[in-house]
Amino acid sequence: MSHKKLINDPLKVANELVEGLVEAYNGDCVHVGQRSLALQHIPDGKVALLVGGGSGHEPIYHGLVGRNLADGAACGDIFAAPPPDIVLEATQAVNKGNGVLYLYGNYAGDVMNFDIGAELAADEGVNVRTVLIWDDVCSAPPTQKDKRRGIAGLVPIVKLVGAASQTAKTLDELEAFAKKAVLFTRSVGVSMSPGSIPATGKPTFDIDPAKIGLGMGIHGEPGVAEIPMTTADDLTPRMLDLIFEDFEKDDEVEALKAGDEILFFVNSLGSTTMMELLIALRKARQVLNEKGIRTYDVIVGPLVTCQEMSGISFSITKLDDELKQAWDLPCQSICFSKMEGRYGG
Amino acid sequence: MSHKKLINDPLKVANELVEGLVEAYNGDCVHVGQRSLALQHIPDGKVALLVGGGSGHEPIYHGLVGRNLADGAACGDIFAAPPPDIVLEATQAVNKGNGVLYLYGNYAGDVMNFDIGAELAADEGVNVRTVLIWDDVCSAPPTQKDKRRGIAGLVPIVKLVGAASQTAKTLDELEAFAKKAVLFTRSVGVSMSPGSIPATGKPTFDIDPAKIGLGMGIHGEPGVAEIPMTTADDLTPRMLDLIFEDFEKDDEVEALKAGDEILFFVNSLGSTTMMELLIALRKARQVLNEKGIRTYDVIVGPLVTCQEMSGISFSITKLDDELKQAWDLPCQSICFSKMEGRYGG
Repeated sequence: MSHKKLINDPLKVANELVEGLVEAYNGDCVHVGQRSLALQHIPDGKVALLVGGGSGHEPIYHGLVGRNLADGAACGDIFAAPPPDIVLEATQAVNKGNGVLYLYGNYAGDVMNFDIGAELAADEGVNVRTVLIWDDVCSAPPTQKDKRRGIAGLVPIVKLVGAASQTAKTLDELEAFAKKAVLFTRSVGVSMSPGSIPATGKPTFDIDPAKIGLGMGIHGEPGVAEIPMTTADDLTPRMLDLIFEDFEKDDEVEALKAGDEILFFVNSLGSTTMMELLIALRKARQVLNEKGIRTYDVIVGPLVTCQEMSGISFSITKLDDELKQAWDLPCQSICFSKMEGRYGG
Repeated sequence: MSHKKLINDPLKVANELVEGLVEAYNGDCVHVGQRSLALQHIPDGKVALLVGGGSGHEPIYHGLVGRNLADGAACGDIFAAPPPDIVLEATQAVNKGNGVLYLYGNYAGDVMNFDIGAELAADEGVNVRTVLIWDDVCSAPPTQKDKRRGIAGLVPIVKLVGAASQTAKTLDELEAFAKKAVLFTRSVGVSMSPGSIPATGKPTFDIDPAKIGLGMGIHGEPGVAEIPMTTADDLTPRMLDLIFEDFEKDDEVEALKAGDEILFFVNSLGSTTMMELLIALRKARQVLNEKGIRTYDVIVGPLVTCQEMSGISFSITKLDDELKQAWDLPCQSICFSKMEGRYGG
């Protein structure tokens, strides 16, 4: 039988969850227009950061609006891009006269709708620039990054860009920073079982009960292979190798080497437990330590989900001094919060 | 078929997840003895705060060790209390000469093992005091609080007591604070479907696919009723009423009334999505607003889980100035982190 969901009208879940999200922010954020939210107090002249995407993946993207994070989010319906009028209303809400950076995952529907939204905003005199997130190394080779999907790497990316946006003087400056954060972030995901679509109860995809989808996307998009279900200690190095190889093959970045510092993020796609994330992290740290790669900080949790889908992803962000400084800034949101500095710092 | 879990040896999950947890802390915490962890730097003379309980409910309890939170945790095997020698090793690790407060959920196995651990610690000259968490109002009437279970209310309680422990001069003072935090915190949980036991793949309990266990415990302990599956808007006021009634019936606290300030926590038991938590929160805020109860701050997320169990709980902590001051302190841990202050503050 289908997964029991605690909802009301199945066709109103996106609107109602955004209303609930605004309540969760308890006054830090305001509800904007049809289905957007924005920080309550954005300083005049700030270079604004707007994120967004389909609902149903909570706590992202709209949970990344917050202090030292994104200024606003345009929220789509479940698994659907926000339409241009919603992008426009969100843009107007965050615009403080110094430009708006759009930062979101590279999916065709999102790109089309955000681009039209950007044109509508330009007609009103708002200067918009777009940086796409394409961290999923299994979705296309490094020579075709424009075909890559955005997955869990969005969390460290938005955190870093949100921090940089607090002091960026110009949209050019923030755009360049965001491009670097994206370029330095790579992810690999796997899935064991699908989530279910809230309106129908149907699974988001099919997978052999004895297999793992290696590189499978968060909506069940095809990955690089279906492999037999295995242990955390067997799977973890295979996933990490795909990330290491990608840094090696990509002419635009240097390969990861001993002494490099990284952010390491272990994400659950939904119903995979924190217990499993920690067991995978245990092995991942062994692999990273053997390579001499230093973990500057760790993120762990179910932050980029697809309903009760099971699966995990690893994301690595290679750091330089500028990115480390941005990481150290505290932040607060429903998706991710931290104090100043870092674990172990 | 059973839920696919990404683990190694099913009998070693508790040890391996604690090892992974220490890696997640990236140096903030150290692994102690068999299966405990403790903050790396606990000041000499600090009144120490020790938490603990069975594993398998991550990110609690051991994920609540952190900055301005608990100083250490004694970790049991999956769904099992930490044995006395583990309690002792954890106590020794956090003891800085000014006493150790044990703060954990009221389950018979935990009480027995922590009590023996306390005796062993006393033999070594460590001054230990215990405060039990019993926030689940559906597990016994207010006149029999000693029979109540500890559920999700532990998160605000440990956060508050952890903050207070930073400045407490004596164990007496911290014990009194902890008793107040427990007294002022009440929770109600519901479950829609069980999790599965990592070692066997078997469900933790059975429930009619068309029903909700109202007041059911996090291991499937019986609640007050099995009710037909319903909507978020129908269920939410019924759950809140049980909390309101409990404050009313209990001679030890005043009833909640207009103008009171509370912390409000919406927890997922595992696979219930953040989407659902937010939809429930949306309705809960309407109910609270109608009663004139002011939400000082909100917590939302899957923090007290039982594997991929589905269900939610609400916890309310009534605040006074002392508790608000403790809440406002920033904190950092795998389970819960925040900046200074509060949402909307």
